[in-house]
Amino acid sequence: MSAPVMDMLDSYPADLGGVDREALARCIEACFSCAQTCTACADACLSEERIAELRACIRTNADCADICEATGRMLSRHTGYDANLTRAQLEACAMACRSCGDECARHAGMHEHCRVCAEMCRLCEQACNDLLRALG
Amino acid sequence: MSAPVMDMLDSYPADLGGVDREALARCIEACFSCAQTCTACADACLSEERIAELRACIRTNADCADICEATGRMLSRHTGYDANLTRAQLEACAMACRSCGDECARHAGMHEHCRVCAEMCRLCEQACNDLLRALG
Amino acid sequence: MSAPVMDMLDSYPADLGGVDREALARCIEACFSCAQTCTACADACLSEERIAELRACIRTNADCADICEATGRMLSRHTGYDANLTRAQLEACAMACRSCGDECARHAGMHEHCRVCAEMCRLCEQACNDLLRALG
Amino acid sequence: MSAPVMDMLDSYPADLGGVDREALARCIEACFSCAQTCTACADACLSEERIAELRACIRTNADCADICEATGRMLSRHTGYDANLTRAQLEACAMACRSCGDECARHAGMHEHCRVCAEMCRLCEQACNDLLRALG
Repeated sequence: MSAPVMDMLDSYPADLGGVDREALARCIEACFSCAQTCTACADACLSEERIAELRACIRTNADCADICEATGRMLSRHTGYDANLTRAQLEACAMACRSCGDECARHAGMHEHCRVCAEMCRLCEQACNDLLRALG
Repeated sequence: MSAPVMDMLDSYPADLGGVDREALARCIEACFSCAQTCTACADACLSEERIAELRACIRTNADCADICEATGRMLSRHTGYDANLTRAQLEACAMACRSCGDECARHAGMHEHCRVCAEMCRLCEQACNDLLRALG
Repeated sequence: MSAPVMDMLDSYPADLGGVDREALARCIEACFSCAQTCTACADACLSEERIAELRACIRTNADCADICEATGRMLSRHTGYDANLTRAQLEACAMACRSCGDECARHAGMHEHCRVCAEMCRLCEQACNDLLRALG
Repeated sequence: MSAPVMDMLDSYPADLGGVDREALARCIEACFSCAQTCTACADACLSEERIAELRACIRTNADCADICEATGRMLSRHTGYDANLTRAQLEACAMACRSCGDECARHAGMHEHCRVCAEMCRLCEQACNDLLRALG
């Protein structure tokens, strides 16, 4: 039941401008998946007994979810492509994933949800950086 | 690279209250996937030559994306569960998917992106209704 | 610097279908304002010393922000108006504001941000209910 | 009924770190207002007879709404402040507002909603740049 990201890319009626479809599809999927995971991790932290140690983690999860979501939506659009905006937003997204991945990694030994979330953030950061490279 | 929705459910540190985890995970995944697909379909419609026939389709895609996203986020949280709000938002989401699926289905013979999107909307509508039933 | 909601309603190029513009504009403004206030309240709660008492408040704030935002966006669109979806989402939004307002009100004596947020939630709940009545 | 942005800043329980509150509040308000205006402008364009000339405008409106919203939410949080992420996202937001303002300005003589939206985008771009300067 994963999003038919590649089917949607393949059925886009105009020119995709020679973009690396694999890199683009992976980044779109990672952005939406990371938004879900970070939203869930923030909530799981909220129910931990030692919540006071997880304040920064909850906050960075919230930012990362919002930024991944905006980035995933932007990447899902191809009409009137704006290379500079795409790059700037991808850079912000890679940074959000880096921050959130670092923070979650600090709690990964203690909380399984932080371990899973750190891994997803790394994957999304990588997907953003791969796409940035592919865009040239 | 699909979202580790079930891993996040399994690592939630408090009681999930006897919810049907399969139905919940499927609905969360469908909401995020449908948000992506509808965002992409709105943009694909925007690049169709016969865009004037797709006004209602673009609009219902935009609503469906926003409502699926809010619903998917709400379902990703379990702390302080609010049964009435969950039901009300799931009902609105099923309705948004129904409307969008119906509209996209009208253009499915002409536009492959509308065919894929109609299918995703049906799947998400079903996942919302299955979860509503599971919640009792 | 408030959003020019009424200017945008007045410049919509097609028929708004006899909707009560005042009630619609007030509800759109309230939804976006409430999304901002709930986002800020969740974060303020996160920095309170007695954060453990605010778990449900942070969660309901997050839901209310997401639902208000989706509702405010839906109400900002008029092309291909869908009366049933509008009503269903407005009802879910009024319920989210009710829940969040109730929870914030419990902490209003202790935390000024919860007092301000409870007031905003009441106002948005009222605006949703007023618009529901105006829609007939 | 505008968002009580400054009241929320004033009731934040921890240190705001010497930020320029006026610049921060103006930018938060501008981001949420711009998200609303761009959502409404995209929909108004959708109902214009000459919709085919407005494809790029609808798309840039959609991006600008999503990016402004994510930025406004991030700026509404202060717990565990991340200066680098804040700057990167503000830069992306200023760029989104610049693109959207430029595109809407092209249609401002023809469509009042594009004129109002271009103005809001300029104001939000300015608010982002002012905050970037204030952050040093």
